[in-house]
Amino acid sequence: MSYYANKKVLVTGGASFIGSHLVDKLVDAGASVTVVDDLSSGKKENLALSMKQISFIEGDIRMQSVANKTTKGKDIVFHLANVHGGRGFIETNPGELVQNFMIDGNVFYYCHKNTVERICYTSSACAYPTSLQSADPKKQVRYLSEEMANPFKEGAALADGEYGWAKLMGEMALKAYNKQFGVKGVSCRLFTVYGPRENESHAIIAFIGRAMLRQDPYEIWGTGQQDRNFTFVDDIVDGLLLSAERVTDCRAVNLGTDEITKIIDAAKTVCRIVGYQPSKFSFDLSKPEGVHIRAASIENQKKWLGWSPRTSFDDGIRKTIDWYSKNVDVQALRANFEKRLFER
Amino acid sequence: MSYYANKKVLVTGGASFIGSHLVDKLVDAGASVTVVDDLSSGKKENLALSMKQISFIEGDIRMQSVANKTTKGKDIVFHLANVHGGRGFIETNPGELVQNFMIDGNVFYYCHKNTVERICYTSSACAYPTSLQSADPKKQVRYLSEEMANPFKEGAALADGEYGWAKLMGEMALKAYNKQFGVKGVSCRLFTVYGPRENESHAIIAFIGRAMLRQDPYEIWGTGQQDRNFTFVDDIVDGLLLSAERVTDCRAVNLGTDEITKIIDAAKTVCRIVGYQPSKFSFDLSKPEGVHIRAASIENQKKWLGWSPRTSFDDGIRKTIDWYSKNVDVQALRANFEKRLFER
Ligand SMILES: NC(=O)c1ccc[n+]([C@@H]2O[C@H](COP(=O)([O-])OP(=O)(O)OC[C@H]3O[C@@H](n4cnc5c(N)ncnc54)[C@H](O)[C@@H]3O)[C@@H](O)[C@H]2O)c1
Ligand SMILES: NC(=O)c1ccc[n+]([C@@H]2O[C@H](COP(=O)([O-])OP(=O)(O)OC[C@H]3O[C@@H](n4cnc5c(N)ncnc54)[C@H](O)[C@@H]3O)[C@@H](O)[C@H]2O)c1
Repeated sequence: MSYYANKKVLVTGGASFIGSHLVDKLVDAGASVTVVDDLSSGKKENLALSMKQISFIEGDIRMQSVANKTTKGKDIVFHLANVHGGRGFIETNPGELVQNFMIDGNVFYYCHKNTVERICYTSSACAYPTSLQSADPKKQVRYLSEEMANPFKEGAALADGEYGWAKLMGEMALKAYNKQFGVKGVSCRLFTVYGPRENESHAIIAFIGRAMLRQDPYEIWGTGQQDRNFTFVDDIVDGLLLSAERVTDCRAVNLGTDEITKIIDAAKTVCRIVGYQPSKFSFDLSKPEGVHIRAASIENQKKWLGWSPRTSFDDGIRKTIDWYSKNVDVQALRANFEKRLFER
Repeated sequence: MSYYANKKVLVTGGASFIGSHLVDKLVDAGASVTVVDDLSSGKKENLALSMKQISFIEGDIRMQSVANKTTKGKDIVFHLANVHGGRGFIETNPGELVQNFMIDGNVFYYCHKNTVERICYTSSACAYPTSLQSADPKKQVRYLSEEMANPFKEGAALADGEYGWAKLMGEMALKAYNKQFGVKGVSCRLFTVYGPRENESHAIIAFIGRAMLRQDPYEIWGTGQQDRNFTFVDDIVDGLLLSAERVTDCRAVNLGTDEITKIIDAAKTVCRIVGYQPSKFSFDLSKPEGVHIRAASIENQKKWLGWSPRTSFDDGIRKTIDWYSKNVDVQALRANFEKRLFER
C-alpha cells in the first residue's frame, strides 16, 4: 500500500503546473487531498482530472486565517504556492517575488503550530550560487551538489535573484523549525521542470509555441549556448512523493536529471518533433537568459531516495507537444505571444 | 520646525529598548505617534514618559489584520518589531528567529498597500558576512562598509545566523519594493546598541548586573578579546530620525560609532564606574561569544546623513549604570541571573 493511502494531504499552489500533477498522483495513491490556491497563476482546469475527488479551497495563503485553516488536521503538506514565473517574470518583478517571504513564513508557522507531520517544500535550482553557474570556466561547476548552496557556508550563498533568495531562505526557515522544534520535512530543489500544463513564460513551452506559430526567424533569448537539465514533470512529482516519505530532517535534495541540453539544441529538438524547420534562428541578447550552465548532481537523490528521473528529453518533449497541440489554441495567443513570455 | 512635527508615525516594536527612546524623541518633535507591540519582549513601562501622548496598540504584527490596521493612514513607519535578543538567545532559538520573515513580509506589504511615505527598517551589523569579522587577519575587516553586505555581490552574503539572514533579507525585500514600486525608505544597520532600558540578555547590561551583584570571579563569555563598537542608544535614535528624513532609495546605512572596545575592557570600564574590583575575571569558552571583531565604517553616515555618534563609551556607560541602579532590583535577579542571559 502506498505511504500516501488515507493520508490527509494539503497541496498549497495545487492548481499550478507541477501542483496539479502532484495532486493527480496523490489521488491515485489514495490520499485525501486538499488544495489551496488563489489562482493568481494556477488554473482550475489543471485540476480537471481530480477536482471531484479533492477539496478545493480558493484562498490567499498570505492570509493567516487561510494558512491556519488549511494546515489544520493535515498529516502532510506539500508547499508549492508562491510568486514565480519564467525568466522574463522573475527578472522584472522583485517587489512581488519578495512576498514569498510572507507566504513561506506563514505556511511553516502554521504547519508547526498545527503539528503537521511532514512538510515538503518546493525549493529550486535558483537557490544555488549564480557564480557556480557562470560562463567562467574557473568557477563553474558542472553538477550542482546539495552542499554547494548553504547560507552558513562561505561562498555558498549567492542565490539567483529575489526568487532564488526566497527559496534558499525558505529552506533555512524550515531547517530552523527542525533544529528548534523537531519539525519534520524536506526541501526539494527542482531543476528546470517542463511538461503538460506549463505555460509560455517558461522556455520549453515558449519554444513549442514559437514552432507551432511557425516563427521565422525563430527567436531565442540570449546566446542559445546556455544549458539546462530539463526535467520532466512526472519525474519531479515522483521525486517529491519519495522525498516527503523518506527525508525527515529538513535537508535539501536535488530533483533533476543528469541529461543536459543546450538551449539552442532544446529549441531544435522541439522544432524537429513539431515538424517545423525555420530558415533562421535569431538570438536576442537584450532578453534575460539566466545563468550560463545549470544541472543537478544526482548522487544524493540516488543515495537518499534510491531514485533518479527516467524520462529522456526526447520523450518528455514528445508528450509535452502532444498535450500542447491538443489543449492550447496557439493562434489565439499570436498577437500577445511576446508579451505573454514576461507574465506568470 | 522638525521634519517630524505633525507627521503620523507608526513605531512597530515601540515598547522595546530602542523603540521606546525613539518614541520619546518623536513625541518631543511633535509627531503623532502610534506604537504597536505584542509585549513579547517589550515593556509598557519603557513608554512611561510618553504613554499619555501616544496611541498604544497591543497587537501581534504577524497578523495581517494588525499590520493592515496600524500602517493605514501613516506617513512614516519605523519598523523595529522582531524576534531578537542577545547572543545567548539568538544562538539557541532559530525556529523563533525565522518568524522575522513573516513579520517583515507583512509590514512591508501593508506599508506598500497603504502607501506609507517612508519606511525606516532597523537592520543590524549581523547582516554583514561573519567571515569579515573572524579572528583570521587575512580576512577580517576593521571597519565594515555598507557595500560589504549585499545579497547580489559575490562574497558579500554570509550573515550572522538566522537573525542576521532575516535582516539582510528584510533589507533586500524593502529594496525590491523600491525597485518595482518606488517605495521610499532606508535600512539602518545598527551596531551593538546599549543604554537605559536594555535588558541583561545583552552584554553591557549583563556586565552592569554582574558588577552590582559583586560577582567574583567575574564571568566573561568567550575569550574577552572580541571587540565591538558599542553605540549609545541616544545616538542611534538620532541616526534613525535623520536616516528616515534624508535617505529614500531604500539603501542600507550603518549607524554606529568608530570607538572600538574589547569585551574585557568594556567589563573593566563597567566595574570601574560601578566602583567594584573583582579579584578575578574568568572566561567561559563554552558560552557563545559572537564574531571576533565588529565595527562600523562611519564614512557613509557622515556623507549621507551629515552625522555620526557623539557619546563616548565612558559617558554612555555612566548614564546606563545610573539608570540601572535606580530602576532595576538586581538582587531580585540573583538566583536566575545566568538563565536570564539566554532569554529575550
Ligand atoms: N517550474 C519550474 O521549473 C520550477 C523549478 C523550480 C521550482 N519550482 C517550484 O515549484 C512550485 C510549483 O511551480 P509551477 O511552475 O508549477 O507553478 P507556479 O510556481 O506558478 O505555482 C504557484 C502556484 O501557487 C499559487 N499561488 C501563488 N500565490 C498564492 C497565494 N498567495 N495563495 C495561494 N496560492 C498562491 C498560484 O496560483 C500557482 O497555482 C513553485 O513553488 C515553484 O517555485 C518550479
Ligand atoms: N539592541 C541592539 O544592539 C540592536 C542591534 C541591531 C539591531 N537592532 C534592532 O533594533 C530593533 C529594536 O531592538 P531592541 O534591542 O530595542 O529590542 P527588541 O529587538 O527586543 O525589540 C523588539 C520589539 O518588538 C516587539 N515584538 C516582537 N514581536 C512582535 C510582534 N509579532 N508583533 C508586535 N511586536 C513585536 C517586542 O515586544 C519588542 O518590543 C530590533 O529590530 C533589533 O533587531 C538592535
